[in-house]
Amino acid sequence: MNETQTSDSQETEGEIGLVRFEDFACLETFSFDDGQSIPGFTLRYETYGRINADRTNGILICHALSGDHHCAGIHSLRDSKTGWWNNMIGPGKPIDTNRFFVVSSNCIGGCQGSSGPSSINPATNRPYNLAFPAVSIRDMVRSQRLLIDHLGLNGLDAVVGGSMGGMQVLQWGIEYPGFVRRLIPMATTSRQGSQSIAFNEVGRRAIMEDPEWQKGEYPPDGGPRVGLSIARMMAHITYLSDKGMDRKFGRRRRGEGGDTSPFEVDFEVESYLRHQGRSFIDRFDANTYLYFTRALDYFDLPGQYGSLEEAFRDLASRVLVVGFTSDWLFPPSQNREVVQAMLRAGKRASYAEVELDLGHDSFLVESPELYELVRAFLAETENPSSAT
Amino acid sequence: MNETQTSDSQETEGEIGLVRFEDFACLETFSFDDGQSIPGFTLRYETYGRINADRTNGILICHALSGDHHCAGIHSLRDSKTGWWNNMIGPGKPIDTNRFFVVSSNCIGGCQGSSGPSSINPATNRPYNLAFPAVSIRDMVRSQRLLIDHLGLNGLDAVVGGSMGGMQVLQWGIEYPGFVRRLIPMATTSRQGSQSIAFNEVGRRAIMEDPEWQKGEYPPDGGPRVGLSIARMMAHITYLSDKGMDRKFGRRRRGEGGDTSPFEVDFEVESYLRHQGRSFIDRFDANTYLYFTRALDYFDLPGQYGSLEEAFRDLASRVLVVGFTSDWLFPPSQNREVVQAMLRAGKRASYAEVELDLGHDSFLVESPELYELVRAFLAETENPSSAT
Repeated sequence: MNETQTSDSQETEGEIGLVRFEDFACLETFSFDDGQSIPGFTLRYETYGRINADRTNGILICHALSGDHHCAGIHSLRDSKTGWWNNMIGPGKPIDTNRFFVVSSNCIGGCQGSSGPSSINPATNRPYNLAFPAVSIRDMVRSQRLLIDHLGLNGLDAVVGGSMGGMQVLQWGIEYPGFVRRLIPMATTSRQGSQSIAFNEVGRRAIMEDPEWQKGEYPPDGGPRVGLSIARMMAHITYLSDKGMDRKFGRRRRGEGGDTSPFEVDFEVESYLRHQGRSFIDRFDANTYLYFTRALDYFDLPGQYGSLEEAFRDLASRVLVVGFTSDWLFPPSQNREVVQAMLRAGKRASYAEVELDLGHDSFLVESPELYELVRAFLAETENPSSAT
Repeated sequence: MNETQTSDSQETEGEIGLVRFEDFACLETFSFDDGQSIPGFTLRYETYGRINADRTNGILICHALSGDHHCAGIHSLRDSKTGWWNNMIGPGKPIDTNRFFVVSSNCIGGCQGSSGPSSINPATNRPYNLAFPAVSIRDMVRSQRLLIDHLGLNGLDAVVGGSMGGMQVLQWGIEYPGFVRRLIPMATTSRQGSQSIAFNEVGRRAIMEDPEWQKGEYPPDGGPRVGLSIARMMAHITYLSDKGMDRKFGRRRRGEGGDTSPFEVDFEVESYLRHQGRSFIDRFDANTYLYFTRALDYFDLPGQYGSLEEAFRDLASRVLVVGFTSDWLFPPSQNREVVQAMLRAGKRASYAEVELDLGHDSFLVESPELYELVRAFLAETENPSSAT
């Protein structure tokens, strides 16, 4: 039945290779949780693998704050870097493209081809900027659902994602209970905590206090580059861990000398962070950073539904939540809490904690333990129609 | 023998009340670790209690990055706030001013009356700004020693401080082994780690990328107010804890309404942080922030002395190191490490871990457990000459 299955696919890992993105243009009015609406929108996405005959082998990948739709393969043979989850997705990999049709969608409010503050407002022929409606995690999920319908999928075999992607995964399960067979939220939370709101607020301040921000009305080739890079540098620290940074950078110096000021880059960790800040501003829009951090801050399932058990009342998916020991942004306790509430609500959920010292970003790194968890969970409740 | 001891002083806690600062002007050339020197310097300080007959009852308080010399009492009857460690220092308090002569000194490189980048360079009659020599923790300690000598003290009964103050405490024990009877470093480290360097670097970037910084040559009434407040907001998060912030602020909204932009202050934690940023820029100099964070970053006892045991080889003081369970800036492990190295070096050192959920700033808050530890340790090896 599975159109792409080959006899040795489960044994040998391969690469997806060249991929290209597509744009889904929805021509119908989209209403946001904040009450505003826009007359249609675009979502940029990529797909890997092939749809099976009954169109039930779809897996949706949800990306994190600074991620995008390009999560596997390469766009050109000259690309030195693959998509951000290439280690997880591909032929014979944990999310096996020999078996699954993988859809990776950009988020509404974004800046990488999907409709967001930098898109042109048809009413004014100028960028929306702050006139773009506030975006919630639920808005992201509802717009993705329209994409999935457009692709003609009969439900999804799984929705998978970490961090902000994990919030979308939870929201998918709540919003479309009959539609999604499995959920794998990782390194996430059911409710943005005070410390995370605080870090986001500092990032927003850095952007909005930058004179180049111009109340959001900066030109497409300009913008608050300093503020955005400061926000990114700070946020990047929260994605790592004390121990991981000590192992990776320690107190090593760059030893280039020549700098007369003691306040210039000297330690390797400073150079690394500055590079993170600088490369981010070339690929990310400052207003989208404001929109997405607010989507995170307002994410509060217990607050929204009365309680976390109540939020999960209609959940019909099987769930594997994965937390990471060194993640201090969305620590293991917050991931465990999700599963505990699901179990109290009588759902089929399990929790796995992976020991990695790379902090919040652990879900992105090579980890045989994580691969095995994902592989086993996706094998577990195998849909007969997509079996070998 | 003790000039100030009263019969019931140990029983009743009182307030120090009105205090005033003094300026110690050292007219001799001071040479910094970086090889540069200045022709004299000023340290601003306060004292509480009275010197005993043999001048052996001195306790030096070392302040943290954003602290100052005003650690107890009030400057005016109109003051609504006391000094920053008023709960710890006073008549009958853990650091008992009925028994001890407490000296609280500002740091060289500072901006609150002591010589630092904003001081006038006599060679140019203009502020030093970045021409001020780089400041190390050891420079702070060596300049404080000159103050202690100026006050005519025959050694110190104790040196006490948290965070950057704790680094100074350790350096005091290493630098002047026969001079200090007891050390109480708290919430500190023997070596600035990668993550802390990273946070400091983001703060420095925020300051130095602010156009108002003007390569450090801003006018006395100007400066990088935006950058400094961003740096302070971010740093302030690292002084608290996830749990402490959730308890104090949670996801509570200010509920004032009226703001049309979703990116303005909404959560209480945002309002609190913004206030922290704004009030800091009125009392702190941006260049001093650069100097002090670099002093922290370059603090590395094992690196400087070959190993931590070697650093403590000549130590002659008794030591009580206090770590705090929720401190993730200088976590318990880093405090414990100090004591373990001292014990390996054959020194008299003990470690106490206080369970408080207020993060790094735990050493500043009311804590009967901490008070009892300090009180007992200061009673323990009481000098006969200052006994009742």
